[in-house]
Amino acid sequence: MNGPAKLIEYWFDFGSNYSYLSTMRIEQAAQQAGVRVVWRPFLLGPVFQELGWSTSPFVLQKEKGAYTWKDMTRQCRKYGLPWTMPSRFPRAAVLATRVALSFEDALWMSSFCRLVMHLNFAEDRDIDSVETISEVLQALGLPFAEIIAEAQSEPNRARLREQTRQARTLGIFGAPTFFVGDEMFWGNDRLDDALAWCAGDAGVSR
Amino acid sequence: MNGPAKLIEYWFDFGSNYSYLSTMRIEQAAQQAGVRVVWRPFLLGPVFQELGWSTSPFVLQKEKGAYTWKDMTRQCRKYGLPWTMPSRFPRAAVLATRVALSFEDALWMSSFCRLVMHLNFAEDRDIDSVETISEVLQALGLPFAEIIAEAQSEPNRARLREQTRQARTLGIFGAPTFFVGDEMFWGNDRLDDALAWCAGDAGVSR
Repeated sequence: MNGPAKLIEYWFDFGSNYSYLSTMRIEQAAQQAGVRVVWRPFLLGPVFQELGWSTSPFVLQKEKGAYTWKDMTRQCRKYGLPWTMPSRFPRAAVLATRVALSFEDALWMSSFCRLVMHLNFAEDRDIDSVETISEVLQALGLPFAEIIAEAQSEPNRARLREQTRQARTLGIFGAPTFFVGDEMFWGNDRLDDALAWCAGDAGVSR
Repeated sequence: MNGPAKLIEYWFDFGSNYSYLSTMRIEQAAQQAGVRVVWRPFLLGPVFQELGWSTSPFVLQKEKGAYTWKDMTRQCRKYGLPWTMPSRFPRAAVLATRVALSFEDALWMSSFCRLVMHLNFAEDRDIDSVETISEVLQALGLPFAEIIAEAQSEPNRARLREQTRQARTLGIFGAPTFFVGDEMFWGNDRLDDALAWCAGDAGVSR
């Protein structure tokens, strides 16, 4: 008999470059740690606005921005991920986020998220059009028209607004952010610590 | 015969909590990587002010601040370091910084830095008085009065102003920051990457 499943909540935004790193590696890392990923797509833009920032700190703070793109180049090399500096940053991805939210429990969710991230950060493609998201869903062999209609429905739109409000309530101020129970971990750099905490590895994190 | 020494420049501020983590572990980590540490103490306050921040982002941004102290508790557990939330943050440490700058090549430099950091982040002690710095130097068996006179001399004061200007010129926006040649790494989380880069470990960082 198994005990209760160990869960990690993964809060991410499709426009966030450090969410790209986590999205590409979380499923494998969680599997190795015996942990299930609960996908929590949300919109970071409204969170930033409530914090008083008109856009990403990487745009608002010139020095931090310049550093971030160097860091991304090195981090992607480290993780063996392709990297192309997006010609627009941060990219809007409302439809993709609605799809991810509406179908968060679907078996194809992680593949969908990785494909969208790949378009944004490896292929420098716009990711906010119905055409692009249809293409991604088709590539996964899915009934794209139905899925998009469901994602665009008013109840699901309202649910995304609620999801983003919840991010604020939880004290989220950036992405990616991981939760293990009430314990919050911010940034791709903390994914391993969060998984170790989840696994109850006292030597590493407790 | 040895090749040219591999160097890591370590830019840090005695009031910076993430500099505490790096200061406690950099010497051992660098030694294991066969790298020599060049200590670069500077004042982060004037850098923040030029960036338009009146104090640390951890004070200015409520959510990030609340998270940071949770993160510090966990990080210190992970590294096996003592941790006490400082009752004043960020603490001024001009004299300690002047001492560190004036004697940056001294054999006792790393011990001095660790002791000052320990007072701030493990014992919640004020670290900006002549008494405290004298106490630290005495504990190391050093001629504290002479050292403090030298540190307070006008040429050394000017040198610290110049050091802090150089931090800005290099694009530094936080601490700790590491340089390997022109390559900049920000944050204690990047110390291992910086050392791997320094060691030319192509598989990890290049």
